Amino acid sequence: MSEEIITSATNKEVKLLRSLHERKYRKQTGLFLAEGMRICLEAISLGQAPRKLVYAASRAHDKPVRELIDACRGAGGRSLAVSEDLLSRISRKDNPQMVIGAFEARFASADVIVPKDNKLWVALDRVRDPGNLGTIMRTADAVGATGVILIDDCTDPYSLEAVRASMGAIFNCQLVKLSQDEFCAFAKSWPGEIIGTALQASVDYRTADYSKATIMLMGNEQAGLPDKLIDATTTCIRMPMMGRSDSLNLAVATGVSLYEWLRHRV
Amino acid sequence: MSEEIITSATNKEVKLLRSLHERKYRKQTGLFLAEGMRICLEAISLGQAPRKLVYAASRAHDKPVRELIDACRGAGGRSLAVSEDLLSRISRKDNPQMVIGAFEARFASADVIVPKDNKLWVALDRVRDPGNLGTIMRTADAVGATGVILIDDCTDPYSLEAVRASMGAIFNCQLVKLSQDEFCAFAKSWPGEIIGTALQASVDYRTADYSKATIMLMGNEQAGLPDKLIDATTTCIRMPMMGRSDSLNLAVATGVSLYEWLRHRV
Repeated sequence: MSEEIITSATNKEVKLLRSLHERKYRKQTGLFLAEGMRICLEAISLGQAPRKLVYAASRAHDKPVRELIDACRGAGGRSLAVSEDLLSRISRKDNPQMVIGAFEARFASADVIVPKDNKLWVALDRVRDPGNLGTIMRTADAVGATGVILIDDCTDPYSLEAVRASMGAIFNCQLVKLSQDEFCAFAKSWPGEIIGTALQASVDYRTADYSKATIMLMGNEQAGLPDKLIDATTTCIRMPMMGRSDSLNLAVATGVSLYEWLRHRV
Repeated sequence: MSEEIITSATNKEVKLLRSLHERKYRKQTGLFLAEGMRICLEAISLGQAPRKLVYAASRAHDKPVRELIDACRGAGGRSLAVSEDLLSRISRKDNPQMVIGAFEARFASADVIVPKDNKLWVALDRVRDPGNLGTIMRTADAVGATGVILIDDCTDPYSLEAVRASMGAIFNCQLVKLSQDEFCAFAKSWPGEIIGTALQASVDYRTADYSKATIMLMGNEQAGLPDKLIDATTTCIRMPMMGRSDSLNLAVATGVSLYEWLRHRV
C-alpha cells in the first residue's frame, strides 16, 4: 500500500491537529491529542480508536503502526503518513513520538458516580496545573479509582500536558464535571464518605474511615478547599508536616491520600 | 531614602540576574534566583541573605521589602529598585513577584551524610524533570529529611523551575552531588538502610525496615534504578499497582515512600 506523504503544515488535517493545543479548538472539535505508540495502542485496547492518526512515513510498515492505522480506519477515522518534521510541529517537541492520535474527549454525567463499597472517586476543586491533573489521573488509575470529578473551573484534562502526565491513564479514567453547587447537592445524597484534605483538619489521615464508598476531595493548589466544600465532607484529614512548609504539592498530597485509602483494602 | 529606579534591561545587574535562567551562568556566578517575599524572608530566617535583590520600586517602603533590603546590604549584597516590567523580564512571568533575590547555590560534601537513627536522606538517580526535583525537595522537607543526594547527571536543583516547585524547601535542604561510583562506595560503609524502589521488587513498601538511618533511593523517571544502584540497596520496595499502568510519577512515588518512612516515627 503506497500513500502520499504529507509534508506541508498547511494541510487541512495537519492544521486541525495543530489547533488541538488550544482548548477552544478541542471544545469545537471534541478531539484531543495523545502521542506515542504505547498510549495509542492502549487506547484501542480500552475501546477508543483514534479519529485521526498521523504517523512517521518511515514507520508505515511497522506492525504496531499498521495495527493503529487499521483500528483508526475501521472506526471510520482518517490516517495520514507525515514527515518527522511535521510530527515535531504537531507535537511542538523536538523529538516527537512516531505516532500522534486525535481521540474523542469524553465527559460522563454525574449518574456514573454510584456508591459501591470498594469504589473510590477523586474530586478536585479548581485544579490549575495540567501536570498535577495528569499526575493525579495516573495515580487514581494506579490505585484502581473509578474516576475524577472536576469541580468548577479546572484546567482541561484533555490538554496535551495533562494527557502526557497521565501516561495513558486519561483513557482509563472516567471524568465528570460539576459546579460547586452541583457537587454540594450531590454530596447531600451520597451515602459514603467524602474525605477532604485541609491544613486546619484535626484528623490524622491514617485514622479516617476508608471502609465505605469514598470520594477523596482535594482543594486548589493555592487556596485549598473553600468552606462550602469543607462543609460537604464527612471528614477532613491532614498529613503530619515536620518541616518548615505547611503544605505538600497537590499531586503528592493526593498520592499519599489515595495510597492510604488503598492500604485499607490490599 | 530615594533611589534610582532601574528600567533598562541592559543594566549590568539586571543582565546578570536574567542570565541565571541558564545553568552555565549559575555555575559561573554560583548564584540562583528565588522569587517572592515569603521565600526570600524564609531564606533570611534560615541564615541566607540574598547577594542581589531586585524589588518593585512601588513597594520600596513596604516593611518586609525594607527587611530584605537591609539583610541583603548587611551581608554585603546589592539591592536595586526596578520597574515591574523589568521584574517580569527577569522572572519571565507575566505576573511577577514583587521581589526576586539571587542567592548562593550551595552543595555540601558527602561528609554531612551521617547515620543517625532518626535521620532520612533522599537519593535521586539522574532525575530529569526540574518540577519533580523541586517537588521532592518540598516533600523531603515536609517529612523532616536532612537532604537530597543527587546521583550522576541530575537536573539542576537551582534552576528557577526546581526552586519554584520546592516552595522554599531549597533553603532547608542539604544537597550533595555524587557520581554513581561514589554513591556505591559510600553505600558499602553505610550502616543503615538504603531502600530503593523498583518495579520488580518483591517487598511491599509497608513491610520494609524503616527503624534505622535511612537513605530512600529513587531511580530516573524513564529508566528506574540501574542494576549497580539496586545492588547498593539493602531492600527494594514496590507499591501495589491496581490499574493499567506499572509505575507512578517519580514525585508521587517518592512522596508515598517518604510518608511511609514517617509513619514508622510519628
